[in-house]
Amino acid sequence: MATLKDVARETGLTVSTVSRVLNNRGYISEETRKKVYEAMKKLNYQPNEVARSLSKQVTNTIGVIVPHIRHPYFAELISCIENAANKKKHKILLFNSKDRDEKEMEFLDMCISNRVAGVILCSGSVAMESFQGINVPLITIERNLEGGTAAVECDNLQGGRLAASHLIECGCKKIVHISGVSGISMPADDREVGFVEVCNEKRVEHLEVKTDFKLYNAGYYNEFLEEVLLNHTDIDGIFASSDLIAAQILQVCAKLKIAVPEQIKIVGFDDVLIASLTAPSITTIHQPIKEMAGMAISLLLDAAENKVVPNKVTLPVTLVERQST
Amino acid sequence: MATLKDVARETGLTVSTVSRVLNNRGYISEETRKKVYEAMKKLNYQPNEVARSLSKQVTNTIGVIVPHIRHPYFAELISCIENAANKKKHKILLFNSKDRDEKEMEFLDMCISNRVAGVILCSGSVAMESFQGINVPLITIERNLEGGTAAVECDNLQGGRLAASHLIECGCKKIVHISGVSGISMPADDREVGFVEVCNEKRVEHLEVKTDFKLYNAGYYNEFLEEVLLNHTDIDGIFASSDLIAAQILQVCAKLKIAVPEQIKIVGFDDVLIASLTAPSITTIHQPIKEMAGMAISLLLDAAENKVVPNKVTLPVTLVERQST
Repeated sequence: MATLKDVARETGLTVSTVSRVLNNRGYISEETRKKVYEAMKKLNYQPNEVARSLSKQVTNTIGVIVPHIRHPYFAELISCIENAANKKKHKILLFNSKDRDEKEMEFLDMCISNRVAGVILCSGSVAMESFQGINVPLITIERNLEGGTAAVECDNLQGGRLAASHLIECGCKKIVHISGVSGISMPADDREVGFVEVCNEKRVEHLEVKTDFKLYNAGYYNEFLEEVLLNHTDIDGIFASSDLIAAQILQVCAKLKIAVPEQIKIVGFDDVLIASLTAPSITTIHQPIKEMAGMAISLLLDAAENKVVPNKVTLPVTLVERQST
Repeated sequence: MATLKDVARETGLTVSTVSRVLNNRGYISEETRKKVYEAMKKLNYQPNEVARSLSKQVTNTIGVIVPHIRHPYFAELISCIENAANKKKHKILLFNSKDRDEKEMEFLDMCISNRVAGVILCSGSVAMESFQGINVPLITIERNLEGGTAAVECDNLQGGRLAASHLIECGCKKIVHISGVSGISMPADDREVGFVEVCNEKRVEHLEVKTDFKLYNAGYYNEFLEEVLLNHTDIDGIFASSDLIAAQILQVCAKLKIAVPEQIKIVGFDDVLIASLTAPSITTIHQPIKEMAGMAISLLLDAAENKVVPNKVTLPVTLVERQST
């Protein structure tokens, strides 16, 4: 592989001049610049980012740890994070923790060893003390972590309120909220709080059902949902805390011959691809995933430059009406 | 940040002994090993992978370039690639090309500059000459590239044959294949070849419809599909070249009040999450995505060690029967 020295030899310039061209430092004539680029091309010279990173002690790489890449919400989020990072000339190292604490710790260690500029954590339940001694910015998206640099969330409370209000406006008399995970504190828990608030304000009969971690990790809720519908035949509105759950409610309704939206109206959460791919398509609460990803990258890079950043940013959600209500 | 020297000082051992422990080289007593790990923990020492990579001139990082992270097929593929890489103690740098050639070139350059162990390319149409001078293994998944190290594909021809045979066995009299992309040569084109072969063998009326790159990149086929169904009202079976398209056919059928599977039977391709999330769920051709990802990683690492690797590996597909047929 050609080195900086080879480029210098080819051009007849000094190594330091070539280095100045590459790093865009100091005055360089157009002619010199052109000569260097031509030699680089001819010799197929590739700057060594590894060496560059070593001298800077930090890379332009961002570690991203998610629990489930294949979950439509995280697939969408990763896509937006990569896009935002790319615009800032950063790359992403992606890790799939499958929500195992020991994997998250291993990945965090790998991020640190690889001198990442920062870490975006969208996963799990690692205890605060595990992060001690980590001196890179640590940005969380939609999860609770004491001791992180900054948390990016959507307005989950508002989302729950919007969903309940919409179902009630559609004429529902008994509505249920099916939440994603019980037993672990998540920003998403506020969806239920908002939902209950509105039900109580409007005096509408309501019910809250929690799924569990095992179902969440499997992504398969069908049997659980069928039981809910069979046990509560008077339900006429459902607010699911993800579009993934909402899609499976549609399947169960089809199986039980319950017409949607005629007999039961359904509101999801996230507004990921799947919400517009079902028949009927799913009315949902739109998480501003693109903006959340952009915010996470921007907070991370600011914090890496030792700028003061907010420790929590909440972005607004909106109701997207489709065919399920 | 603590250095190797600090760990040596803390333990009273030499730097070279500590380094031998870290690299698992030579004989080290259990007592010494324990002492080093305790000191590392106490000082919060993190080995510098960047420095290590510089001395090896290659990292344990694999570049992965996909056209659309949020596409369910690629989300699934990335998840499996990350998992397979992780098992071999490698990390993935993920790039989303959105099928723009110039982005793919930029990402390839970034991979080389960052001294990746190899690149897995699942995207685009970059010309062969662009890869000249790239001396790391370049593994493609489901795309054509002359000059790559190795290509991993599923048996697309067999997939097309299975789909056509199944529709015909279900009693379909006029079947149509809707393909993903026209105008660019892809291994997936063989799905149509297999489909046509079986239709001709069984003398069943058939039709082939191609979507285009713009629809593929948008992931939105609804209007196009509605036109197909309205123009060919005698179709009773459809083989879609992705589950994403199949899901949208279900939507159009719901809109046009065509009962699935009673009036039209549908077979998808890929067997991604969405195929089991629709109502009715989608009969599909299962791509062995997990095995393809594992094979890509294994070929890449073998090639990186200068082992001879096959330049093409084709993995078998299977028919998964669900409710749409």
